[in-house]
Formats: sequence, C-alpha cells, structure tokens
Amino acid sequence: MKHVLSVLVNNSAGVLSHVSGLFTRRGYNIDSLSVGETEDPTKSTITIVVNEEEKMVRQIEMQLYKLMNVLRIEDLTYKESAKRELVLVTVTAPRESRSEILTLIDVFKARIVDMTKDQIMVEMSGTPRAVESFLEAFREIGIEKIARTGTIALALPSCSYCDGNTQ
Amino acid sequence: MKHVLSVLVNNSAGVLSHVSGLFTRRGYNIDSLSVGETEDPTKSTITIVVNEEEKMVRQIEMQLYKLMNVLRIEDLTYKESAKRELVLVTVTAPRESRSEILTLIDVFKARIVDMTKDQIMVEMSGTPRAVESFLEAFREIGIEKIARTGTIALALPSCSYCDGNTQ
Repeated sequence: MKHVLSVLVNNSAGVLSHVSGLFTRRGYNIDSLSVGETEDPTKSTITIVVNEEEKMVRQIEMQLYKLMNVLRIEDLTYKESAKRELVLVTVTAPRESRSEILTLIDVFKARIVDMTKDQIMVEMSGTPRAVESFLEAFREIGIEKIARTGTIALALPSCSYCDGNTQ
Repeated sequence: MKHVLSVLVNNSAGVLSHVSGLFTRRGYNIDSLSVGETEDPTKSTITIVVNEEEKMVRQIEMQLYKLMNVLRIEDLTYKESAKRELVLVTVTAPRESRSEILTLIDVFKARIVDMTKDQIMVEMSGTPRAVESFLEAFREIGIEKIARTGTIALALPSCSYCDGNTQ
C-alpha cells in the first residue's frame, strides 16, 4: 500500500543523502520523493511516497527519527489530505491533432506553455490520479518529452462540519 | 548563479542517495531537487537546481557521469526552457480576509483545494518567480502550512520563427 510521509528536516548538508540512503540500504521501495522549502529557510520538507506494508512503514519512521536533522514525520496516508503533482509534457501536435489536444487541455484544466509548428508544451497539476489520466490521454497522441515532480501533500484544515471525504 | 540540471537515471536502488551524496561530500549547494518518473518505467529524471559558478557546475557534471546509473545530464540554464514549481498552502482566512484572498487566487491563477471557517487551502503552479510572488502576497495574510515541490524543467521545442525569449 502507498504511504505518504511528510518529513520535516533541518537544511543541513547530507540530510537528503542520509534519508535516501536509509531507503536504499534497507531495500524499501520509494515511489516518489520531493524536497521543498518551507516558510522557515533553515528547514525543508521531504515528501516520500513509499509502497510498503503498514508494519514496514512504522519501522521506516523509527529509523528516520534516529537520523540527525530529522525533526518530524507525518504519515498523511490515513489523514484527510490533499495530494498534488505537477507535470510538463511536450506532445506531438501536427495541425490535424491540435483541436483534439486543445479539448484535452480544457478537460484537464491544463495550460499551454509553448506551441510550435509540430509540438505543444503543456503544464498540468492535480492529484496523482488526475496526472496519470492526463498522461494516459496524451500518450495516445504522442508524448515527446516529460518532466514530472514527485507528490506533495498537506493535511486538510480541520473542520467541524465536514464529512470524511479525502481529496 | 543558479543552474538547472536535468539528470536522467536508471531507476536503481541507491541512485538518488549516490547523486545527493556526491553533492554533500563536495559541499555543493543544492537549491532544490525533484525526482520524477519518465515515460520509461525503468528511468527517472532528477532535476537539481544548484547555486554554483560555471566551472563548478562543469565539475559536478563530470562527477555525476562517473556514477553508475547516470545516463544523461542536460544543463538547461542557457537553453530556452520552461521551469515550473508547484505549491500547496493553507492560509488564515477569517471572513473579513476572504475577498482579498479570492482576488489574489484569481490574479495568480491559483485554485482553491479546500475551505473551512478559518482557513483556505490553495494550489498554485508557475515559474519559480511566480511561486515566490504568490507566497510573498500570502505571507502578509498569514501562511499556516506549506508543501512545495522542487523545480522541474523542460527544454522548449525548437522553433524556426521564435525569438530568443525564455519562459
């Protein structure tokens, strides 16, 4: 099962290689990893999507806490949280495919970054599932190049009148 | 100066910790790092923004090429390329601030993910500069939580009639 861990770390040289090294040495399966700044310039968040059993994930948490400069770990898997990814793709776009491509861009609320005679570059963000669907649709047309972030996640604000849906 | 390196690697255990370990050992200054899937499930792209002199960046390239499983390095700094980031923020949003917040969301073409009595969660993607401006605007209102990807980048399609502008 996929677990999303949000790991707050000090911005110290080596913290990323220590964290990723832990996953390597133990043979844990990282699906995606993203390092981003926080509001405090001395700290970063590493968001890791790991495909392991519950028991393993608890072990990983324990081992991460033993690393220097790991400050806090939040497992967002069972929390109501928003998960998002971003992708840039260049697609084959001869004139006869353009109208189909523009429709898809509209459907997925994506944005055109650049367009030449034969290619269109598109930017799209959304849930990991929406990004996968977007890519699946464009694969049929022809993806030339792709750049994709890992998943980021944030717990939804608590809310007294909300039901249990997760976005 | 900030350089954007797009590093294509085999999806092998340890490649990320080897790459990030190289930066640590040599004391190079990583501004951001993002690991994302490619269209080939056996390969990933690591996008690294590094703040170093030209000479240093050439050394880093040479050293990266010596690592197992590093297949190709593209320095997108001087190429016409699109650079994008994604951020999720939760902002303080009492009723009296809501209209200002909604205006900002409109200006930055951001999207509301969730809204409770006191908080709004917003998703925004754009150039690193646009993301910074967006955060600056919301800092005045009050950012409670933030999750941010590193920068991803893709070379713009070549185009016989384009001028030299970079997005």
